[in-house]
Amino acid sequence: MDQALPANWRIDDLEIENLRIIQDPDSFCFGMDAVLLAHFARPKSSDSVLDLGTGNGILPLLVFGLYQPMRIVGIEIQPGFVDMAQRSVKLNGLEKHIHLLCGDYRDEKLLRSLGCFHLVVANPPYHPVGSGDMCQDRSDCIARFELTSTLGDVLRAAAILNDGGRFCMVHLPRRLPEVIETMQKFKLTPKRLLFVHPHVHKNASLVLIEGIKNASAGLTVCAPIVVHEADGRFTSQMQEIYHGGRLI
Amino acid sequence: MDQALPANWRIDDLEIENLRIIQDPDSFCFGMDAVLLAHFARPKSSDSVLDLGTGNGILPLLVFGLYQPMRIVGIEIQPGFVDMAQRSVKLNGLEKHIHLLCGDYRDEKLLRSLGCFHLVVANPPYHPVGSGDMCQDRSDCIARFELTSTLGDVLRAAAILNDGGRFCMVHLPRRLPEVIETMQKFKLTPKRLLFVHPHVHKNASLVLIEGIKNASAGLTVCAPIVVHEADGRFTSQMQEIYHGGRLI
Repeated sequence: MDQALPANWRIDDLEIENLRIIQDPDSFCFGMDAVLLAHFARPKSSDSVLDLGTGNGILPLLVFGLYQPMRIVGIEIQPGFVDMAQRSVKLNGLEKHIHLLCGDYRDEKLLRSLGCFHLVVANPPYHPVGSGDMCQDRSDCIARFELTSTLGDVLRAAAILNDGGRFCMVHLPRRLPEVIETMQKFKLTPKRLLFVHPHVHKNASLVLIEGIKNASAGLTVCAPIVVHEADGRFTSQMQEIYHGGRLI
Repeated sequence: MDQALPANWRIDDLEIENLRIIQDPDSFCFGMDAVLLAHFARPKSSDSVLDLGTGNGILPLLVFGLYQPMRIVGIEIQPGFVDMAQRSVKLNGLEKHIHLLCGDYRDEKLLRSLGCFHLVVANPPYHPVGSGDMCQDRSDCIARFELTSTLGDVLRAAAILNDGGRFCMVHLPRRLPEVIETMQKFKLTPKRLLFVHPHVHKNASLVLIEGIKNASAGLTVCAPIVVHEADGRFTSQMQEIYHGGRLI
């Protein structure tokens, strides 16, 4: 490492290919949504992947650990996160595979300067501004609320894909109609949906969605993921996911 | 009965409140989709319910058996089905509760002449014309293919609901994006989704969707229904549904 880590940062084991990530427990830390999205996205080894709003770099690290695509670019608007993600990339010796960029993905020129991608992934802020209490930490706020990017901004950016290119995102089921409508607006045809239920008899808490640029209509709704057994333990499905198994 | 049944027709037990239905095994007979939709629709006892394209009357009979709403009107374009459904209504002594009408629900004047409804239900044709082999039987074709009514026709008709009125439909998951977009076009805000999976690890084969006229956005995705156990038997959930239990 070039510099010692700030005292409150920590290094977490991702339990995939010995990968580790640096996180600040007082700010935004990755959750189950990022882990599931990395599995859901399943790039090929020849793919070039773009992560919109990469935060602490969790998606590039997980996607690389699981699928080793040729190239992953993460774009992030907050310099503090770019620095933290860059340290994680170095820590894992992945500088040749994961490239991080401090910038605003609403800037189409900037996006196009990055070349072509086969897959765009995004774990965007879930909540419109004004739809809940803001968090104490500014970075955490930006990750959770649509302060620097709205759903429309994410999907407009994803629409730089060429025809046949794939877009994978995680979001809240309550916003699914808006997600689908906005994807259609940007010619990202919804092709695959996967719902995540905290328990087998509970409503879905997350939705994973794949769109393909300018594809013909026709959606597949996959078998759902159930997170917990009745007694609170992870289901065997989730245990495998958390240990790098490829379930999806 | 006013007249003897044609020789090939049969009387099936619905296993709910001793209700029975007359069906022609050579034409369209009801399936699991109608049973699930009746449960999903769950009208109140004070509700007035309209069924768009009532066919042999299965939805009015099931909805009455399960929930006893105040009034149910079924509209059906094929006179042969209206006759068959009317015979079933008489067979069950439900003439005061279920009213059948031979007509085209694309005729808005006709629809508005029927009064106000709290709930509109529809089990429409799933397949666009030209998307598969037509069936031998003309009535069966009309039930399965969009020959006399498209998705847009069904949703335009459902939009006669007053603000706050509910619309419940069953359809194919593959057409969900189009369903959601067209519902939004007619101000039927998607509020509740329920997916049906033939087995726990299989893709969804049906989707049940509820929209509320002019409601604010916000969708709930319910815990899924799984139809079969690994050994092919019905799950306990489906067994209860088929025996009149109110699971949803």
